[in-house]
Formats: sequence, C-alpha cells, structure tokens
Amino acid sequence: MTQKKCSAPGRRTRIGVFDSGIGGLTVYKTLQKKYPFCDFIYYADTAHVPYGGKSGKTIIAYTEKIVSFLLRKKADLIVCACNTASAVALESISRNSPVPVHGVIAAAVGDAAVFSRVAVIGTKLTIKSGVYEKQLKKINKKIKVKSLPAPLFVPLVEEGWSGTDVAEKVTGIYLAPIRRMRPEALIMGCTHYPILRREIADFMGPKTRLVDSSSLAEAISGSVRICPGAGKSSFYVSDDPGHFVKMAKKIMKVSAGRAQLCTEFL
Amino acid sequence: MTQKKCSAPGRRTRIGVFDSGIGGLTVYKTLQKKYPFCDFIYYADTAHVPYGGKSGKTIIAYTEKIVSFLLRKKADLIVCACNTASAVALESISRNSPVPVHGVIAAAVGDAAVFSRVAVIGTKLTIKSGVYEKQLKKINKKIKVKSLPAPLFVPLVEEGWSGTDVAEKVTGIYLAPIRRMRPEALIMGCTHYPILRREIADFMGPKTRLVDSSSLAEAISGSVRICPGAGKSSFYVSDDPGHFVKMAKKIMKVSAGRAQLCTEFL
Repeated sequence: MTQKKCSAPGRRTRIGVFDSGIGGLTVYKTLQKKYPFCDFIYYADTAHVPYGGKSGKTIIAYTEKIVSFLLRKKADLIVCACNTASAVALESISRNSPVPVHGVIAAAVGDAAVFSRVAVIGTKLTIKSGVYEKQLKKINKKIKVKSLPAPLFVPLVEEGWSGTDVAEKVTGIYLAPIRRMRPEALIMGCTHYPILRREIADFMGPKTRLVDSSSLAEAISGSVRICPGAGKSSFYVSDDPGHFVKMAKKIMKVSAGRAQLCTEFL
Repeated sequence: MTQKKCSAPGRRTRIGVFDSGIGGLTVYKTLQKKYPFCDFIYYADTAHVPYGGKSGKTIIAYTEKIVSFLLRKKADLIVCACNTASAVALESISRNSPVPVHGVIAAAVGDAAVFSRVAVIGTKLTIKSGVYEKQLKKINKKIKVKSLPAPLFVPLVEEGWSGTDVAEKVTGIYLAPIRRMRPEALIMGCTHYPILRREIADFMGPKTRLVDSSSLAEAISGSVRICPGAGKSSFYVSDDPGHFVKMAKKIMKVSAGRAQLCTEFL
C-alpha cells in the first residue's frame, strides 16, 4: 500500500471514529494499533445507544450530526464503526462529507465474498436492511447467504458476560439455525460481536471462518500519512462519560480517561 | 375512594401514560382495566429507549418534552410508567406541570414499607439513584434494604424470552445474592419485570412477596371521573410505530394498532 509522508510534521492524519457506544472500540483498537502515529477522535452516541432496534431515518439523523461534529474537529477521514449505521446511513453521510467516510461493511463483504456459503449475524436493523446479502451478491452472484439477528449479544457484551455459560447458551440458541447451513464463513456483523469470538468459534467449529471488519485497516491506508512519534486519542460521548470510561476499560480494555461530554445534539 | 362523576358527559378523564418503550404497558393495562371509561394517551420514547443506562440529566430532558406533549394533548393527569424516569425526573416534571403527575415508585414503596427486610431490583440508573431505599427509610426507619441492578432483564423481555431457560438462568444469577438475605418482599423496580414474574417467584420461593407498582391504580382514583361507556386509547411513539405495535402485541398482549409517529423531539 502506498502511504503519504507527513507534509507538515505537526499535522498528523486525524481519524474520526464513531459508534453508538463502546462496540466501535474494537475497530478503534485495530486502527490505532496499525496507525499509532495518527490522531484519533472517537465519538460514542451514548445518549441514543443502542442503534440496532431503531429506524433508519432516526439513525441517519443521529449520524449526520456526529459527522458534522467530527468535521468541526478537523477529521481527515471518518470511520463509521457501527454496522447498523453503516447499513442504513453510510450513503447519506458520505454524500455530504468533504472527507472520505468508510463504513465497516465493505471490508467484511470483501473478505467473505470468496466463499460460496456465508452466514451473517447482526442487529435487527442491520439484518432487516439486507445490506450484507446485497453487497455479497454484487461480488459473487452465486453466493448463498443466510442472515439472522442476534439482539441479545450487545447487552450480554455490555454487561461483561462474555465467557459465561449464559453467553454460551444464548450463542447456541441464535447460531443453531446457522450451523445447520454449514457456512464456510460467518460475518460478525456488529462491532460488539468480536468480544464473543470464543463462544461463536466454539459453537461453529473450525470449518467456519469468522469474518469481522478488521481488514478495514488496509482499506483506509491510502488516506493515512506516516509521521514520526505517537498520535493522541480523544474521546467524546453524548451522555455519561464516567460510565463510558468504565465500560471501555472493563469490556474493551481501552483507556478513555479523557472522555468529554458533548451534549449539543441531544 | 371518592370519585367524581362526569360533569360534562362528553369529557372523559384523559390519562397520559409514558415510558421509554413497551414496559409501561404493564402499568397501562392495570389502569385501563380499572378505569375502562377513561381515555388514555400512551407515549413510548422509542427513539431513546432504553432509559436505564443513561444519565439523570438526559432523562430529565427527554421526559420534560414528553410531558409538554401530553399536556398539549389535554391530559388531565400524567403517569410516568417508567421506574428510571420516576427515580430521577419525577420531582422536576411535577414542579412544572399544571396537572398531577404520578410516578411508579411511591406505590411500590407504600406496599413494601410494612416489611422489615426488603430487596429491590431495577435498572442501573434506578438502583444508583437510591430512591427506593431513601423512600422506604422515610416510612420505616428500621427497614433493611438490599438493592441490585438487573440490566439484562429488559432486553430478555423485549426479545420475548420470558419462560425460557435462559431467562431462568439469568434470574438465578441476578437474584442469588438477594435470596441469601431472605427478604420478606422484593420490589420489581422496572415496569418490564412483571413479565418475568414466574421466573422471579420460582427462584425466590413463597416466603418472598413480589411487589410492583399496581397499587398506583388506587392512588390516582381521586383524579378520575366515572363516566358511562368506554374510553379510547391512543398510542404515540418517537420512532418506528410498526416495531412498537408488534412488540406490544407479542410481549405485552396490548393492541396498539393506531400507534402514531411523533418525531418532533428527536
């Protein structure tokens, strides 16, 4: 991949990342590890979390406001680290943004489209949108896709219950109809789900490859300038920074110690 | 209880009931059964559901807008059918309302305060507010209270999983520390929880009385006029009426066929 060098040494590439809550931190971690020399601005819309059960129109209204905020904070590119928002709002926010906007769906679709039987799990809204199936079939017309919502996965992860037998049981209930299809790949279509990777992998067995959006890190490399030294990360939330910081640490192992409240969009 | 008769036959008492979602329908059902001759306006703030993990300030902002809406719809009294909002916003919304505003906490507190060992379960925000403990101790200084949050109960109910062994298992995990205290009463401090009454009763055993907010129906009788014939119910939501109507039917057995979208507060 070709990457530009810092033109002005003081000006690092600033990557805006957003999600409804802590889920997008799985994406932030992947990006920050690959591009430690970039600055990051992470926005969590905790006043409206979760997005997965709301309507497309409402999600578009919320995400448009977040994108304007990230632009005012001088983001050079924006990553929508939420599958639900990527499914229903990406087109609309990309159209109005002067900087590149990347969602989390294209990366997973690219990795999964080489297979012939693919399963997708996600929130109700993501699955209802049919976006994975449509995009997979654009690349691979003969692909067989089975999609199912798994609404309890997000609250289970947020409660810190990954690794418990409740998580194992719920995983078995949601994935049983998917395992019967014997998919070669399973797309974990929600940024919370990689936290349940072990339960999902154990239940599906070694013949199903688990796909998430981590190859997104490659996809943005063209927009990233390499700089000397380490960049900084700032965290903003629309509600309750204390709760966000605690959850980020406990569930996602991310230190968001300087999370700031930004309520202008309530 | 003394109840006024309809002064003008056409003007039924109009009761405004609100919650973040479908949970408050347990309260609506109790009230509608007792006062079938009243008109009801039910407002579900589905664009912001759930309230239980958000901050008090945010909940106050949301509920103040809902109360103005219900007042514009000419509600004669308002019932805040959400424990979280009752815990953190009732004082503020009562202060600014020209009609009586009732929460769901006082009723349960009144029923439970006669016991000496009482347990409370609720959302994170309700438990953090300490409102049940404070109000119970105002009536009964010597009462021993143990409070614990049960965050997965709401998504479990909304997924329609009451009666499953996952619900039973989660109930056991949350209530084990409470059962060890051998409470004489357990306050189900969230309007979703009565849907899990069987699981909770089975785990706690017959020596613990389950208390919810149903005696609220008595508390409002002074504000209700008896009228001939049957009243009407109208339903409003801040997002996705179709989903609300489906869930209301499936989980709460309530027909909300005429639910209207009201997005002015997004």
